[in-house]
Amino acid sequence: MTDITVMLPDESKHQHPKGCTGLDIARSIGPRLAKDALAIKVNGELVDVWKPINEDAKIEVVTFKSPEGKDVFRHSTAHVFAYAIQELYPEAKNTIGPAVEEGFYYDFDDLPITEADFPKIEARMKEIVARDERCLRHELTLDEVKQKFLHNKYKVEMASEFALAGGKLSAYQIGEKFMDLCRGPHVPSTGCIKAFKLTMVAKAYWRGDAKNRQLTRVYGISFPSQKELDEYIKQREEAEKRDHRRIGRELDLFMMHEFSPGSAFFFANGVVMFNELVSFLRDEYFQRGYEEVMTPVVFDKQLWELSGHWEHYRQNMFLTTVEGREFSLKPMNCPSHALMFKAHAHSYRELPIRMADFGVLHRNELSGVLGGLTRVRKLTQDDAHLYCRLDQVEEEINGILDLLKKLYVDTFGFTYRMELSTRPDSFLGDVKVWDQAEVTLQKVLEKNKIEYRINPGDGAFYGPKIDVHVRDSIGRSWQLATVQLDFNQAERFDLLYEGQDGKKHRPVVIHRAILGSLERFIGILIEHFAGKFPLWISPRQVKVLSVSEKTAHYADEIVRILREDRVRAQTDTRAETIGKKIREAQLEQWNYIIVVGDQEVANKSVNVRTRDNVIHGEWKIEQLLKTLRAEIDGRK
Amino acid sequence: MTDITVMLPDESKHQHPKGCTGLDIARSIGPRLAKDALAIKVNGELVDVWKPINEDAKIEVVTFKSPEGKDVFRHSTAHVFAYAIQELYPEAKNTIGPAVEEGFYYDFDDLPITEADFPKIEARMKEIVARDERCLRHELTLDEVKQKFLHNKYKVEMASEFALAGGKLSAYQIGEKFMDLCRGPHVPSTGCIKAFKLTMVAKAYWRGDAKNRQLTRVYGISFPSQKELDEYIKQREEAEKRDHRRIGRELDLFMMHEFSPGSAFFFANGVVMFNELVSFLRDEYFQRGYEEVMTPVVFDKQLWELSGHWEHYRQNMFLTTVEGREFSLKPMNCPSHALMFKAHAHSYRELPIRMADFGVLHRNELSGVLGGLTRVRKLTQDDAHLYCRLDQVEEEINGILDLLKKLYVDTFGFTYRMELSTRPDSFLGDVKVWDQAEVTLQKVLEKNKIEYRINPGDGAFYGPKIDVHVRDSIGRSWQLATVQLDFNQAERFDLLYEGQDGKKHRPVVIHRAILGSLERFIGILIEHFAGKFPLWISPRQVKVLSVSEKTAHYADEIVRILREDRVRAQTDTRAETIGKKIREAQLEQWNYIIVVGDQEVANKSVNVRTRDNVIHGEWKIEQLLKTLRAEIDGRK
Repeated sequence: MTDITVMLPDESKHQHPKGCTGLDIARSIGPRLAKDALAIKVNGELVDVWKPINEDAKIEVVTFKSPEGKDVFRHSTAHVFAYAIQELYPEAKNTIGPAVEEGFYYDFDDLPITEADFPKIEARMKEIVARDERCLRHELTLDEVKQKFLHNKYKVEMASEFALAGGKLSAYQIGEKFMDLCRGPHVPSTGCIKAFKLTMVAKAYWRGDAKNRQLTRVYGISFPSQKELDEYIKQREEAEKRDHRRIGRELDLFMMHEFSPGSAFFFANGVVMFNELVSFLRDEYFQRGYEEVMTPVVFDKQLWELSGHWEHYRQNMFLTTVEGREFSLKPMNCPSHALMFKAHAHSYRELPIRMADFGVLHRNELSGVLGGLTRVRKLTQDDAHLYCRLDQVEEEINGILDLLKKLYVDTFGFTYRMELSTRPDSFLGDVKVWDQAEVTLQKVLEKNKIEYRINPGDGAFYGPKIDVHVRDSIGRSWQLATVQLDFNQAERFDLLYEGQDGKKHRPVVIHRAILGSLERFIGILIEHFAGKFPLWISPRQVKVLSVSEKTAHYADEIVRILREDRVRAQTDTRAETIGKKIREAQLEQWNYIIVVGDQEVANKSVNVRTRDNVIHGEWKIEQLLKTLRAEIDGRK
Repeated sequence: MTDITVMLPDESKHQHPKGCTGLDIARSIGPRLAKDALAIKVNGELVDVWKPINEDAKIEVVTFKSPEGKDVFRHSTAHVFAYAIQELYPEAKNTIGPAVEEGFYYDFDDLPITEADFPKIEARMKEIVARDERCLRHELTLDEVKQKFLHNKYKVEMASEFALAGGKLSAYQIGEKFMDLCRGPHVPSTGCIKAFKLTMVAKAYWRGDAKNRQLTRVYGISFPSQKELDEYIKQREEAEKRDHRRIGRELDLFMMHEFSPGSAFFFANGVVMFNELVSFLRDEYFQRGYEEVMTPVVFDKQLWELSGHWEHYRQNMFLTTVEGREFSLKPMNCPSHALMFKAHAHSYRELPIRMADFGVLHRNELSGVLGGLTRVRKLTQDDAHLYCRLDQVEEEINGILDLLKKLYVDTFGFTYRMELSTRPDSFLGDVKVWDQAEVTLQKVLEKNKIEYRINPGDGAFYGPKIDVHVRDSIGRSWQLATVQLDFNQAERFDLLYEGQDGKKHRPVVIHRAILGSLERFIGILIEHFAGKFPLWISPRQVKVLSVSEKTAHYADEIVRILREDRVRAQTDTRAETIGKKIREAQLEQWNYIIVVGDQEVANKSVNVRTRDNVIHGEWKIEQLLKTLRAEIDGRK
């Protein structure tokens, strides 16, 4: 038997007998890794740990830690679920059962169950997991599929189409009785799936088409340990309490309406938050040398042909025809900024030019996936494009990271980690430029002591990028900011500057968004703070409650003084008990609640508490104004 | 001969012999009026001064002062022009020659002239005016028209269509040889047209259709006196110097691009002005109890069916289809505000609710009429809708007039007059409500000592309105703000509030815009100030010039201090002469130009002058900061 050479991600090389499996290799690295191994990447291709390896290869052991590992794990859970259904409901016919962003689902025909049936099904799944049966791959011909899935027209239909398109058919067997048509890969055996939970029953149409048969869709989630599952369930419960759609309604922040799916209507309270975020950014822009521009919303398709969006993105754009010309609503600002850059001649001395825009964007998301502020059709990005020389990239990225930190960490108390995606196999531009840029990005990330990882080959064809994954107060992760280098836009739009050498050069373009979509960010902020916003961005800053009719006038006067100082204040002079007024103001999330009675009138003072019942007691009006001003201006 | 009774606009009644003409009546009032009379309104219908009046009637003598008088005057000038052309170019065939917003034009076929021919034509026109020939009306049958206009297929074509539609044909004769098919009325005789000028030759298609023959269009202007014409010409020259398209380019305020006709691209300097206007309004809104909302851009056609726009305004909307549903870009905000009002239950105590919106609107103006910022497809209004009780209308209108004054007069130095348009014959709602509202509007206008006039019957079918005509620094008038009462929207959208009586009532809706379209207003501001903006709204506030290399660092330091205080400042540290730097800064319209040399470095001071060369001399830095802050915050 000859040996093969395998190279691990740390670039170390190891000899293994030809025909060894990924699991063998994982074992040779360590027992822990062998236990955690869910699949193997062989030269970038994801396969089962059981698959023999017969040639030299780059090898990576895939565990639950990676997104691919999670997908394999949850997809295998879907198979275990289908196996249990086959045992409990032999009439049911399974169709497709993929892993999704959060967990998995499986669509069945003839499965008349409700969530009340979950315990029984989960119990059967546990038995299957306890049996620790192997998941084994079989390559099949179409005829074999037709024979094995005789009673499931869905599987036969899919297999026929797949084979017709030239695909190689495969199926996975668990134990002796269960087989599912599937591309794989899967976890080594059912014993891996230590903890799972079915979460919801829904309806779905076969192939998503309302003309087809309605199927039963069951959602579920799974983890390698009960502890992780428990944490997930707790986080979900907490997230539900903080659901921005509910809080948005309760605090009068925004509404949705069927007449404009996916476009938020912000009430005054929501607009306060929106405008405060924009003001924050404008202040930063002013100090950091950005220029804000305003661009049109509707553009001739010629622009999108030039930018490439017409070819690659048209299905996501809203189209309209005017005087026989085809136009579309812009899904992003970059092409219009390129036109503005091009409107002037530029010298190397003027660079970088940092063009920011709060323009309204529209992206045609399917109405089915729209929900609250996190999936919308109309959005506003805190978008900017930095036109710079290659030698300025480092300083520009550094500036962006500084702004990111100021906003996310210092101001809102998020944490984050970043992902750097590097040159893909098929790329555009000069390798040397790519290399220099990637080294620069890594250097800046390290200098700023940022937790990051590299996704090799995952960059766009036109440049490397940094994605920012922000962690909120209940531990959920959101992909928000992006920083994308672009070596292509300047070519496409023929953008030039005159260098120190008197010759024309192409600028590097950096696309970057700090908050991403303001709508989505506001949705996340609502959940991050559970509606208890910091004072500066809070739509409800100070509520002034009169103890009695007698002090109503004084309450009004306090509010007048506060509003003159631009504090968002309101009175409550109703003839209710002060206790009731305080409770209501707390539910409405007023940061400061001020009570004024006879004593306060006499002393020209106010009695101050917070929405969380921290009692500050009696303050002079000046002290109140000073405290509020410092807290608001400090944006903390 | 019997007498008839005529009633004049002052409601006085006078006896006149039956068959008297409008001119006779004007003479009986006074010789001056008889001289100025251009036409007569008989029971609201505009007719020639020569027409016999045979029944009791309401009579109004129309002079050049009224818009209708101007139209008659200029339309008659177009006839005089055509008469001159007929004498000079017998082959030319006249088509149509209307009065337009500014002057008149006349389209001719087979008229191969250039502007070099104007003096000859104007000389001939002067002869016709000097002959003071009467303009006489003839009623004709179609056959007579065909006979008289044998050689002009255009006139025959128009007459045939008009007759087919049931119209009564008429023509006007001047002198013996000139006759034009025309509805009239016209001035009494050519002698009225004391001063005129041909301004431009252009091309136009017959009936505006590029498939038809191309005609020669000649534009002209006319006035009852040479003095008025001279003033007009001077104003035009001044206006051309101030053309916002030219200044917009020179000061880097905005650009237009063929990829988005009618939508401005604002450069950073233009955005500064835009944002300062919005900030000004937001400050006012905060103090005046408005709530700002944000609404979607794209709405299902169901909304427009509900609002009536689908029926009446569809041709002006950009349409788009998504998932088989028809949508359109909003041309105005009102319907979305109605949806937001409806989202909550309201009590009489909460009214008025003042909902403001800076949303992006789109109106499908023909590309041919687009130009600069004054005719655009994409616009942003400083729009608000006030939902109030009828008894609150007075206070609300009063508040609006106060804001109008603060903005136009106190801040920008415009003057204005207003027009109140009252109940038309066909109207909706309760006469008593209309009467009360109209009386209220008049009362508020008078209380505020505003110059206004009433346009009886010119209101919308759903409510009376006030239009604001603003006069700029070179005397031109712009229709900008509007205040429109609406007794219909609450019906259409079923808007309700609970009254003090516990019953449901419909609110009155007041639509109002102060600046109108911000884009258009910025265009007008540019021309009003000829680019010399007040400090607070100026994109270029302070330029700091170093005398030599040695003081460059100090100049940078001054700019840093200024920018920290949010002053828009820039250095010029180039190795140019200080004279050249000052001249360039003046051309760039920097409000303050600061020179720093050795003396200033030594004294920690600055040497201050304005763009208009007012020399302030040496100031301490603190004095500079204080002066700027006061001027900026004062918004003057």
